[in-house]
Amino acid sequence: MASNDLAAPMARLVDEFKRLPGVGAKSAQRLAFHLLGIEREKAESLASAIFEMRERIQLCTQCNNIAVDALCPICNDAQRDHGLICVLEQPNNIMVVERTRAYRGVYHILHGALSPLRSIGPEDLKIKSLLERMRDRPVREIILATSPTTEGQATSAYLSRLLKPLEVKVSRIGLGIPIGSELEFVDEATMSESIEGRREL
Amino acid sequence: MASNDLAAPMARLVDEFKRLPGVGAKSAQRLAFHLLGIEREKAESLASAIFEMRERIQLCTQCNNIAVDALCPICNDAQRDHGLICVLEQPNNIMVVERTRAYRGVYHILHGALSPLRSIGPEDLKIKSLLERMRDRPVREIILATSPTTEGQATSAYLSRLLKPLEVKVSRIGLGIPIGSELEFVDEATMSESIEGRREL
Repeated sequence: MASNDLAAPMARLVDEFKRLPGVGAKSAQRLAFHLLGIEREKAESLASAIFEMRERIQLCTQCNNIAVDALCPICNDAQRDHGLICVLEQPNNIMVVERTRAYRGVYHILHGALSPLRSIGPEDLKIKSLLERMRDRPVREIILATSPTTEGQATSAYLSRLLKPLEVKVSRIGLGIPIGSELEFVDEATMSESIEGRREL
Repeated sequence: MASNDLAAPMARLVDEFKRLPGVGAKSAQRLAFHLLGIEREKAESLASAIFEMRERIQLCTQCNNIAVDALCPICNDAQRDHGLICVLEQPNNIMVVERTRAYRGVYHILHGALSPLRSIGPEDLKIKSLLERMRDRPVREIILATSPTTEGQATSAYLSRLLKPLEVKVSRIGLGIPIGSELEFVDEATMSESIEGRREL
């Protein structure tokens, strides 16, 4: 080991941190030295939380949300409207919808969005399981709530074409100008979408 | 568990990440979901790197640098000048000096800086062990290389007063205008320091 290198176990930890998204070389070092400086049991608590999460977390067999049991708490909740499915890209998107307290339906998580650039096609998303659950239980409406990014829009368009022939109402979340923003600063794409999506008062 | 909460093992991991410096609620969630999305062995590799680091890393008995053995590679290197000690606040500061390839002395890590505000006094820093090693082995010069922050400056001033009576040359790293910067943008404190620290050509 060259004397100007970090001790091997420290260097390995810095490398592991560098692999995380948004963590650069300097942050990685800062995090590793932070874990050296705090009480050992606190550092090990992070490590064991990682092991425990990978050990215990699975995907809900119905909606592909993260779960500790076969069904996630939402799919397992008889009070929710199982005839209304909100389709999302990622499990953490669920919280954004739940926080509104306005939605009482269930979810379906795709675990991604279509992306020709990154070679992600329909078979890489949890689309087959969406069609299967529609066969198992009557579904009234499917709300496509993928992000209004290029990839999310493409995914929404693809699913719309796929689902419409199945005699289910298919809707897209409202796109437009966010509440609280000044019209002056709205970009062209959002403004067009906002005019197109206007509602009669 | 409320249905809009994360599954418990995921929530625990998000909480652990939030305790790290510079990691907010959103990054914590992003990191936790990243570790769910990648291969299980890659996620567990980060966890085991934390355990391994805390298991194997200790402080060098001489300079308090991080080490896997009783002496760090620098203190163990007979080619280094053991009569010249560079005093630093943190182990990762060593790399900043080593990268210059201009320093052939050894180090002493204080593991902090004096800070009345955070109740960090001389007894909280590795100062006693610096005095001890000066008794064990002759030391020609001590370079005080704490950061030129309020805390680092106070630490440097304290050590200077403490060490000078011990008949050892005590020096402070050069403070002034960094190489490559425009004089126009130099702050007052740096400019004063730069004039005071001028060198005859």
